[in-house]
Amino acid sequence: MSEQGARASGGPRQASAIFAATLDLLAEQGYEGLGIESIASRSGVNKTTIYRWWPSKDAVLAAALVHSDLLAFAMPDTGSLRGDLLALTREITQLLTGEQTAPIVATVLAAAPRRPELAAVAHTFFAERLTREQPMFQRAIERGELQPSVDPAMIMDLLAGAIWFRILLRDQPMTPEYLSSAVDLVLQGTAATR
Amino acid sequence: MSEQGARASGGPRQASAIFAATLDLLAEQGYEGLGIESIASRSGVNKTTIYRWWPSKDAVLAAALVHSDLLAFAMPDTGSLRGDLLALTREITQLLTGEQTAPIVATVLAAAPRRPELAAVAHTFFAERLTREQPMFQRAIERGELQPSVDPAMIMDLLAGAIWFRILLRDQPMTPEYLSSAVDLVLQGTAATR
Repeated sequence: MSEQGARASGGPRQASAIFAATLDLLAEQGYEGLGIESIASRSGVNKTTIYRWWPSKDAVLAAALVHSDLLAFAMPDTGSLRGDLLALTREITQLLTGEQTAPIVATVLAAAPRRPELAAVAHTFFAERLTREQPMFQRAIERGELQPSVDPAMIMDLLAGAIWFRILLRDQPMTPEYLSSAVDLVLQGTAATR
Repeated sequence: MSEQGARASGGPRQASAIFAATLDLLAEQGYEGLGIESIASRSGVNKTTIYRWWPSKDAVLAAALVHSDLLAFAMPDTGSLRGDLLALTREITQLLTGEQTAPIVATVLAAAPRRPELAAVAHTFFAERLTREQPMFQRAIERGELQPSVDPAMIMDLLAGAIWFRILLRDQPMTPEYLSSAVDLVLQGTAATR
């Protein structure tokens, strides 16, 4: 059982209410509007109870993110690396633009550089994603679509990075044509790599 | 003259002091620690004077960033697209990891999603960069290194995005080997694109 799970085991129903209130408040008011006070009032759970489990708003938020399925994702298995990467890039786009997920992702990443607990959630999230993506690349190698020397992390850095950069930093719309061009460019680049 | 320039023209020496204080405070204490009060106290300029020129801390910060040369960059012209892209990726890495620039970049981008004035600075910055990068790609097309059908913005999205993703989201170190592999992969991908 995780540390958060153990902490919350005294009152799992209250923990769910606290997590839901935390993510709702984050989406509505951003990181700066989030506080133990407002979480207590929204969830109907006593402030002292919340502090007993989590010492800070960052700790509650980190636990809420880990326990939520908002950031959950299915690993595609379409039969080709191209199909798998297209599915993944569509899903990353959805995460960054979806009504429920976009405000959460943006504010957590915004706050993370100076918030060690949130940074740890982000780093763990991306490390876990990469671990779960490995079988996709392994299948591609077995099908002869990818050379074993290519670093899967770099492929994901390039594709996920381009989507992040374009949506969040350039504020440009994402199109299916852009995603397929980017996937094709990277696949052709990896095919030529030796 | 820019709007900020016109506003500040009544007291350019004071404006410089205000901008320097703003960026210092941002680097030291992050976005949340920044305020007109603290800027006034650090710069020695009266709070009322600051408010007369800029209505909010975001407005001061936006003006400070536009006027600073911290985010200035030289456009490389090494004689090859590969050399130019390597130089650009090294410079982006420096921007994201440099002692003076990293805290500023991280906090501004962190705050930007909910701060329209900061978001506008970021979008203008990246749009201007792209405009200044165009001649580099034009020279590459003239040298026969790049097909005219390739979108330069996508090349920059992939490379800059990968660097951002790896440094800021994965919290992994950047190496010269990584940069040259990424540039080679993208160049081989664009060479194969038709």
